[in-house]
Amino acid sequence: MENATLIVLLALLQYVWLTMRVGMGRGKYHVDAPACEGDENFERLFRIQQNTMEQLIVFIPATYAFVLYMSSKWVLALGAVFIISRFLYSAEYLKDPKTRTPGMALTMLANVILILGALFGLLKGMV
Amino acid sequence: MENATLIVLLALLQYVWLTMRVGMGRGKYHVDAPACEGDENFERLFRIQQNTMEQLIVFIPATYAFVLYMSSKWVLALGAVFIISRFLYSAEYLKDPKTRTPGMALTMLANVILILGALFGLLKGMV
Amino acid sequence: MENATLIVLLALLQYVWLTMRVGMGRGKYHVDAPACEGDENFERLFRIQQNTMEQLIVFIPATYAFVLYMSSKWVLALGAVFIISRFLYSAEYLKDPKTRTPGMALTMLANVILILGALFGLLKGMV
Repeated sequence: MENATLIVLLALLQYVWLTMRVGMGRGKYHVDAPACEGDENFERLFRIQQNTMEQLIVFIPATYAFVLYMSSKWVLALGAVFIISRFLYSAEYLKDPKTRTPGMALTMLANVILILGALFGLLKGMV
Repeated sequence: MENATLIVLLALLQYVWLTMRVGMGRGKYHVDAPACEGDENFERLFRIQQNTMEQLIVFIPATYAFVLYMSSKWVLALGAVFIISRFLYSAEYLKDPKTRTPGMALTMLANVILILGALFGLLKGMV
Repeated sequence: MENATLIVLLALLQYVWLTMRVGMGRGKYHVDAPACEGDENFERLFRIQQNTMEQLIVFIPATYAFVLYMSSKWVLALGAVFIISRFLYSAEYLKDPKTRTPGMALTMLANVILILGALFGLLKGMV
């Protein structure tokens, strides 16, 4: 349980940083709320944060489920893959959105393993 | 607890599928990141996934709270309503966004019952 | 645990209300799905809800982690700050998006204290 919470809190710190970068990007690239478009650089920062949120909605509950029904050790490796792949995704996206596939694929891979691992452990325990 | 986790993991699998469909839709309908607009078919796939995320942020914590403070049996029925209503919403939205009301209403109904049921059980236990 | 769940359920009720307001705003301001732009008043309602979702993805897990590893009393104060700051953010944003900083800053403050407090308690327990 501690391992899951540690990983989740670190992923949330990373996300808070990505979110603050969007807020500061509004001033830097002159994109006034409520608009979310109008400058390519701002749109990249915004989409990195949005995409990370879209993945966190899977990652957080799947991390806890994986720890409860599968393994509290392997969750550290999968959590590390998630967080590192988000840094990679951000770096790729800022350089050129076309190059973002590796970061995206690694994040999805971690999330799918977390879901399927937890589901496997859960169903095994139910039988 | 097992029932809540089972329902949540199945809803997450459905959401991962909706998310992958958006990713593939970018190639199919020629909408390059960071853009999220420009083709009506892509926008429909994107909004189905976004709307499902907007509902999952309620569904996941409310499902666990409902199991803890109200009922671990009824959660299966409400979870089934949630997941089925998301398939319905997707089918409706792809056909014509104007017809999406039933799927949307069923999802909201499941979520509101989960929140109010959990709140009722929680407050009853506190008194 | 009860305190965390109470706070989370109340924050979810507030969010459901913000979400329903977006749905009704589509009719009121004539913004048909899948579009999310085209009327400044609608865009404000939409961005208030979206921003609240972006913050809830941090608030919900951080609230539970804070209760487990730091304090089940202070979570009530931080939860109250979160919910009140979201009402403030909504009122500010509807009046003029440029005035939304206090509501936004208070929300971020509550979230950052929840994350760092939980992380501190967790790491202290691990050593």
